[in-house]
Amino acid sequence: MRSARVSRRGLLGGGGVAVVGVAGGFAAGRAGAGESEATTVESYAFRGEHQAGIVTPAQDRLHFAALDVTTDSREELVALLQEWTEAAERMTRGEDAGPEGAVGGSYLLPPDDTGEAIGLPASGLTVTFGLGPGLFRDAGGRDRFGIADRQPEALRDLPHFPGDALDPRRSGGDLCIQACAQDPQVAVHAVRNLVRIAFGRVSVRWSQLGFGRTSTTSTSQDTPRNLFGFKDGTANVKAEEPEALAEHVWVGPDDDPAAGWLAGGSYLAARRINMTIEVWDRQPLGDQEAFIGRTKGTGAPLSGGSEHTEPDFEMPGSNDTTVIAPDAHVRVVHPDMHSGARMLRRGYNFVDGSNDLGGLDAGLFFIAFVRDPRTGFIPVQNAMAKQDSLMEYLRFTGSALFAVPPGVGEGEYVGQTLLG
Amino acid sequence: MRSARVSRRGLLGGGGVAVVGVAGGFAAGRAGAGESEATTVESYAFRGEHQAGIVTPAQDRLHFAALDVTTDSREELVALLQEWTEAAERMTRGEDAGPEGAVGGSYLLPPDDTGEAIGLPASGLTVTFGLGPGLFRDAGGRDRFGIADRQPEALRDLPHFPGDALDPRRSGGDLCIQACAQDPQVAVHAVRNLVRIAFGRVSVRWSQLGFGRTSTTSTSQDTPRNLFGFKDGTANVKAEEPEALAEHVWVGPDDDPAAGWLAGGSYLAARRINMTIEVWDRQPLGDQEAFIGRTKGTGAPLSGGSEHTEPDFEMPGSNDTTVIAPDAHVRVVHPDMHSGARMLRRGYNFVDGSNDLGGLDAGLFFIAFVRDPRTGFIPVQNAMAKQDSLMEYLRFTGSALFAVPPGVGEGEYVGQTLLG
Ligand code: HEM
Ligand code: HEM
Repeated sequence: MRSARVSRRGLLGGGGVAVVGVAGGFAAGRAGAGESEATTVESYAFRGEHQAGIVTPAQDRLHFAALDVTTDSREELVALLQEWTEAAERMTRGEDAGPEGAVGGSYLLPPDDTGEAIGLPASGLTVTFGLGPGLFRDAGGRDRFGIADRQPEALRDLPHFPGDALDPRRSGGDLCIQACAQDPQVAVHAVRNLVRIAFGRVSVRWSQLGFGRTSTTSTSQDTPRNLFGFKDGTANVKAEEPEALAEHVWVGPDDDPAAGWLAGGSYLAARRINMTIEVWDRQPLGDQEAFIGRTKGTGAPLSGGSEHTEPDFEMPGSNDTTVIAPDAHVRVVHPDMHSGARMLRRGYNFVDGSNDLGGLDAGLFFIAFVRDPRTGFIPVQNAMAKQDSLMEYLRFTGSALFAVPPGVGEGEYVGQTLLG
Repeated sequence: MRSARVSRRGLLGGGGVAVVGVAGGFAAGRAGAGESEATTVESYAFRGEHQAGIVTPAQDRLHFAALDVTTDSREELVALLQEWTEAAERMTRGEDAGPEGAVGGSYLLPPDDTGEAIGLPASGLTVTFGLGPGLFRDAGGRDRFGIADRQPEALRDLPHFPGDALDPRRSGGDLCIQACAQDPQVAVHAVRNLVRIAFGRVSVRWSQLGFGRTSTTSTSQDTPRNLFGFKDGTANVKAEEPEALAEHVWVGPDDDPAAGWLAGGSYLAARRINMTIEVWDRQPLGDQEAFIGRTKGTGAPLSGGSEHTEPDFEMPGSNDTTVIAPDAHVRVVHPDMHSGARMLRRGYNFVDGSNDLGGLDAGLFFIAFVRDPRTGFIPVQNAMAKQDSLMEYLRFTGSALFAVPPGVGEGEYVGQTLLG
């Protein structure tokens, strides 16, 4: 059985994708919480039209890092992105970060891989890179890398939303790495080795682990639950909807004359959202469901049906109001209220120790991929901040926006359309 | 296949243990990183001679919480331990924390389970409770619960060790909960629901997630790796060594005249150890191996053999010294240097965001179970702090010691031998 798995240290030659059916025993089991997936992929191709880790069926674990570039040299930046591309491709195949590997090199040199993933399979690792506004113009407005004229119009720091209580040490960043895998050790290994490679050229600005996905990006996946206990991901844009992806997720070639380089890419909006779970847990079940607009058990809209029935926001309830309250989350953020705008959500639950109130520092690390944050994310987040009944139980503590370059072909590096 | 699993919402009746062989598909797969286990247990009995979560084959994920008791009432403390016992037993079976469950109760009341584990199997959850020194005498020396005369001699705050840089907000605690499971969402769910139940009687002092076990507690397990990239857990005391457990892990009935209630229990020493991984990663492979005293690939002692060969500390090397250096970790902490003292290690890797130096806040959350910390842990930790070559790459940022009461029989509650 072991030999059927795609394993570190080079069982698989080059760039391959190993799809293993559910009957495959271990391979299937490694899907973890999403155990009812129809198929489980052990390893995803790094290269392709789009970066992996967006429509890829959401893996169970996340390590996300935002980094600041500390060099002013364009050559060094390009070299970094080239090295990252190579290392990321190797690791998504289940190989070590560098060609010598954790134990294959000279005893007199530091290994080119840190070793904690020796023996672990590829675990469905994807590595997705993003570029923040600060790469185009630094805090002082300086065009360090000669790319300011190619900064996308839409790539600006997200505005301050009502109720934001942002920690600057959890916000922003010149670059981001989103590593997702079925095994957290594999996701952590990827980020750590990319950071190691970047030594002297970047510093980690913030980093976030997520332990439970809160989204589905494929119809083959079961809907998981967030820390409010509700199914999360039901109405997501999914891999099986190419038209919706083209309309709502992938940047088009003519979207922004200054940023043709971003065609086939996307924008990643990240929001670290603390939940006051201790307060939430004291709300009656009926109120919790009213706040969301769906039932806690099956995830069906309160207007009836089953999980995937469309909500009916007009259905009259008692007391002169609708069955789904006007301030219910699923109504406030619904495409119908936002000119049809949809997003591909890909968030994760987190618990980061405890808070000053004697409770858990826990919540949702929200990630959404959108074609244009100005229409696809900001208005929705604004409406939520102003009207959503969930807001009483949330504190937004981190925020960032990145442009996610398109995928790369053979011999190319991530960001090449911008810097090449 | 689904029906073969022990799943939340009561597929399994009462107190059962479901052991599923590796051929069982999903059940096998849910072992996660430890995929070569000979068998995988979906659910462990909560009741027994000893608490579960000590010799239980180390699960892949940890959520550890240290709590302070905020009530002064002995009745409330007893009631809390009774409620915890019941809820922990339910959850280890894969059931909801309370009898109504996350969605089975009244719409007008808060649910007695928070819901994020609906649909997830028991996932090998174990919940292990411990009692800190502050339960017996609070910071002011007060005997809040009338148990000061039963405080074990060995249950004192750990001494300050050379090099300790402890954060008081990551140290100590009147109570602890160690929740381990194959699925982090299940471990987090357990801690969160126990904290919810304790509302008004405890506050969370600190809480730590661990994502990758660094130990083996059964000969059926593969040895995993810590964030230095080395196999960790090789020479551990294992479940299959009943004599070693009796000698080194379980408290005997006559160990401490004041604390006969602790017979069959143990002590849990927790140390949050930050690794300066960025510096470590720049050390040559040969140096890394010299610091540990074992090879990075197979984990064999530098004196030769394979992973489970005993190290030969006398074997002469070049330059007037031994092959295994005098300050190599495995030598400094070896039983031979400590009158034969052994411990059952059960630690986890962690990454908690980033640090002020632009690196990852990462390391090892070390947990050891010992029969007597005065002989089984403190001298070893002291020797390590003073002589170990690893120390240059470590910062000890958290520390705590708990007495772990024995297991409970039917109708009993955890801590009953002390408070009943
Ligand atoms: C901790 C905070 C949040 C919680 C607990 C939460 C929870 C949920 C839940 C339970 C659903 C229904 C199931 C589903 O369709 O996935 C949902 C849907 C949705 N959420 Fe959130 N959400 C949160 C934050 C956000 C944020 C920040 C945004 C964007 C600004 C957002 C946008 C959406 C959208 C677009 C939908 C789908 C609505 C539809 O098409 O029916 N959510 N959310
Ligand atoms: C981040 C800190 C640490 C690292 C990276 C580390 C790493 C290791 C490694 C790689 C081994 C060899 C494999 C094995 O037998 O498991 C080992 C063994 C051991 N370690 Fe540690 N360790 C750390 C902290 C500690 C601490 C704090 C203690 C106790 C005070 C400790 C006690 C032991 C013991 C007793 C052994 C087994 C020695 C033997 O019987 O051969 N370690 N450790």
